[in-house]
Amino acid sequence: MTDHAGRPSAETIATVTLALQRQFGNRCVTSDAVRQQHAHTTTWLANQPPDMVVFPESAEEIREIVKLCAAHRVPIIPFGAGSSLEGHLNAPNGGVSIDLSSMKKIITVHPEDLDCVIEPGVTRKELNEYLKSYGLFFPIDPGADASIGGMVATRASGTNAVRYGTMKDNVIALEAILPNGETITTARRAKKTSAGYDLTRLFVGSEGTLGVVTKITLKLHGLPEAISAGVCPFPSVKAAADAAILTIQTGLPIARIELLDAVQVKAVNVYSKLAMPESPVLLVEFHGTEQGVAEQAQRFGEIAEDLGGGPFEWATRPEDRTKLWQARHDSYWAVMALRPGIKPFATDICVPISHLADCIEETQADIAASGLIAPIVGHVGDGNFHTSVLVDTASAEEMAVVKGFLTRLVERAHRMEGTCTGEHGVGQGKMKYLGAELGDATVSTMRLIKHAIDPDNIMNPGKIFTFTP
Amino acid sequence: MTDHAGRPSAETIATVTLALQRQFGNRCVTSDAVRQQHAHTTTWLANQPPDMVVFPESAEEIREIVKLCAAHRVPIIPFGAGSSLEGHLNAPNGGVSIDLSSMKKIITVHPEDLDCVIEPGVTRKELNEYLKSYGLFFPIDPGADASIGGMVATRASGTNAVRYGTMKDNVIALEAILPNGETITTARRAKKTSAGYDLTRLFVGSEGTLGVVTKITLKLHGLPEAISAGVCPFPSVKAAADAAILTIQTGLPIARIELLDAVQVKAVNVYSKLAMPESPVLLVEFHGTEQGVAEQAQRFGEIAEDLGGGPFEWATRPEDRTKLWQARHDSYWAVMALRPGIKPFATDICVPISHLADCIEETQADIAASGLIAPIVGHVGDGNFHTSVLVDTASAEEMAVVKGFLTRLVERAHRMEGTCTGEHGVGQGKMKYLGAELGDATVSTMRLIKHAIDPDNIMNPGKIFTFTP
Repeated sequence: MTDHAGRPSAETIATVTLALQRQFGNRCVTSDAVRQQHAHTTTWLANQPPDMVVFPESAEEIREIVKLCAAHRVPIIPFGAGSSLEGHLNAPNGGVSIDLSSMKKIITVHPEDLDCVIEPGVTRKELNEYLKSYGLFFPIDPGADASIGGMVATRASGTNAVRYGTMKDNVIALEAILPNGETITTARRAKKTSAGYDLTRLFVGSEGTLGVVTKITLKLHGLPEAISAGVCPFPSVKAAADAAILTIQTGLPIARIELLDAVQVKAVNVYSKLAMPESPVLLVEFHGTEQGVAEQAQRFGEIAEDLGGGPFEWATRPEDRTKLWQARHDSYWAVMALRPGIKPFATDICVPISHLADCIEETQADIAASGLIAPIVGHVGDGNFHTSVLVDTASAEEMAVVKGFLTRLVERAHRMEGTCTGEHGVGQGKMKYLGAELGDATVSTMRLIKHAIDPDNIMNPGKIFTFTP
Repeated sequence: MTDHAGRPSAETIATVTLALQRQFGNRCVTSDAVRQQHAHTTTWLANQPPDMVVFPESAEEIREIVKLCAAHRVPIIPFGAGSSLEGHLNAPNGGVSIDLSSMKKIITVHPEDLDCVIEPGVTRKELNEYLKSYGLFFPIDPGADASIGGMVATRASGTNAVRYGTMKDNVIALEAILPNGETITTARRAKKTSAGYDLTRLFVGSEGTLGVVTKITLKLHGLPEAISAGVCPFPSVKAAADAAILTIQTGLPIARIELLDAVQVKAVNVYSKLAMPESPVLLVEFHGTEQGVAEQAQRFGEIAEDLGGGPFEWATRPEDRTKLWQARHDSYWAVMALRPGIKPFATDICVPISHLADCIEETQADIAASGLIAPIVGHVGDGNFHTSVLVDTASAEEMAVVKGFLTRLVERAHRMEGTCTGEHGVGQGKMKYLGAELGDATVSTMRLIKHAIDPDNIMNPGKIFTFTP
């Protein structure tokens, strides 16, 4: 972790702190609690707090912070809701955390164009609450109530991605402030463009390493006329995975298809007061017209039955449906109850769907052989699944076992033409896998781009790849 | 056009020619006809032929060409099918055109994953012919039978984009050779990834300015169970555009919705021996299950009727459907008959759909006031439309009128939050608009990336933006 510009001197930090406190008053915070909270991580990576946290309220204020930090070569860590999972918010060399939670304006909704323009601090739930009255929604739903800016940064996805794509598919344009203090607009509001390099997609998934996103134009979708959702148990994880595979292969436009293994179901039942059958299950949802949804559900039922699944249980009332998906999103918290006092952390591999059943089976066998508690949930329509590993990070012995498991998990994904990170990003936690995944020449190309845009490495240093200015 | 590294000396070209002829024999061609053909353009931009054309048969051969050219700072112009529209293939400073038409391997089709891995010289029709027996298809369809590599380079789209997206949405991964001779793989074959910068999307639309694409992993789609297509006349272009807008806004998953104005219909009828009503029409197509398609068609029919459109005429037989869409794709050729001896060239603006009807109406009025012949066709579901301007490029007077029209057209698109290029790319023809469209800071950022990856500006110089090493 010494792969960046180096920690600024105490004097430099004092100078920058003074300047920011003068400008921002009590919106520049140096208290230990706030600094710690802005570096929190859900892996075993140690907290590396920034030197201070600033709460700007406009792009212009952000620009001033960026210019000040650039002049003093002080690191900047853009902070959304703090729900990222791979140490994205850690400040290995200190610096200024820019907390964007005061940037919550929904600037315009264009219902006729199915898009909106918002500030980065708006969270996905806030946005969807606001959009309800327009009959619109924004489908990308990582488990947490993440900020949209953070979701841009990590190229987030979630349960709806199988139908609606990921953040890369749902961002039309971005406004961002570069380390040189310039503001760029990556595209106009038209739905299509071939006007030069796709800077929108370059910034989506760049994890705050290229600039601070200050405005986001998002694609929206009409609330489906009809929704049906349900739970379908299967005799084995393989049968459930096979059903998911067949569903995708037959082109069924399913909106959500989530796998929970038996351990995960048990945990969710207890935490969310549900009574799902304690076997592997698929949670599914269909969007469309009344007729279309009925047709899709029937076809899925046939597939499930062919694979020994069922009986299918429908959540017909909206409140039951909400409860079901909230339970799915709460699976992280539910898992905690399986081993009190221990925080789970999530793995995130994604493989071509033809390898999915094998990959999950091998992983389950590995979990069993390793003696781990690690329930599985997965966005199986995309070939993406998580294990929530319950490990006592204080035990060197357990950590050694888990590290072995993780190495094998990522190697398994790579062997099956997959990725170590389907949707959580690289951050600090997955830097070590990137070379094996994409090759050194590819990672070097990313470094060239980083160097071109952020030569002094002030933007969220020490993330994605090692980089020395 | 002096915005690049400068033309290599005659000696340098002689050295490179000799080396390539030695290695490639008669696969290195310097004849005038072949050189001219490899610079052809469909605008009034003058042909700027390369010094030679090489026909490599493997990525390794391409790598050797790139290394040789890099060592001598000789420009490289990757060439697919030669169907690009904005002077992308011109060689303002000479150099080596790498003709990829011998790179036609379809390496693997993974029907279970709905993807395939191919070489860049495969054309879209060749690919779809090959995929038929798998029950799969690749939906992106620019009018010409373009090479997939060229479609990657220009971020192409076409009539199916309204449902299936553009090239940016349908490329999973690329292999490319950089100017430094290194080979990169931008992603693995998994459907989703958040593993670092999105180099896939950076290369899609980079117009050959960053490297030569040597392998492409594409998303495929199952052939729809049912397809229905038809023609619906409207009393005015505005009524037709409004029907398209309403169709999109109500969330109808229409697969194609193409506008032809009355002039265009007339030309197409003659050229393709059809008998469409000579008024503005929408050509539409629905994909889905039998039931789904029937439902969609009925809903669209209701929308059309509400706007005074109809009667709807269905092309129920596959051969009639093929004829209809071939006619649409041949609209460029059809237009030529309207003014014998004159080649049309296509404009390509795209605006948010709420502005579409106004934009088309203003443009029609402008065409009329300018005394031009310029039929309109449009991918109106995306807010994208073309005018095919028939201009005698030898007439200074006509050219002045057309240039005024083009300036106003692009200004209109910009005023309506749109782009000067929905799908044709920037090439040489639209460089002058990019600053006004995205701002100088954005174009400078593109330049920084270009400089990082191609510091000597050997990759397709003089395209997208001015750049001096």
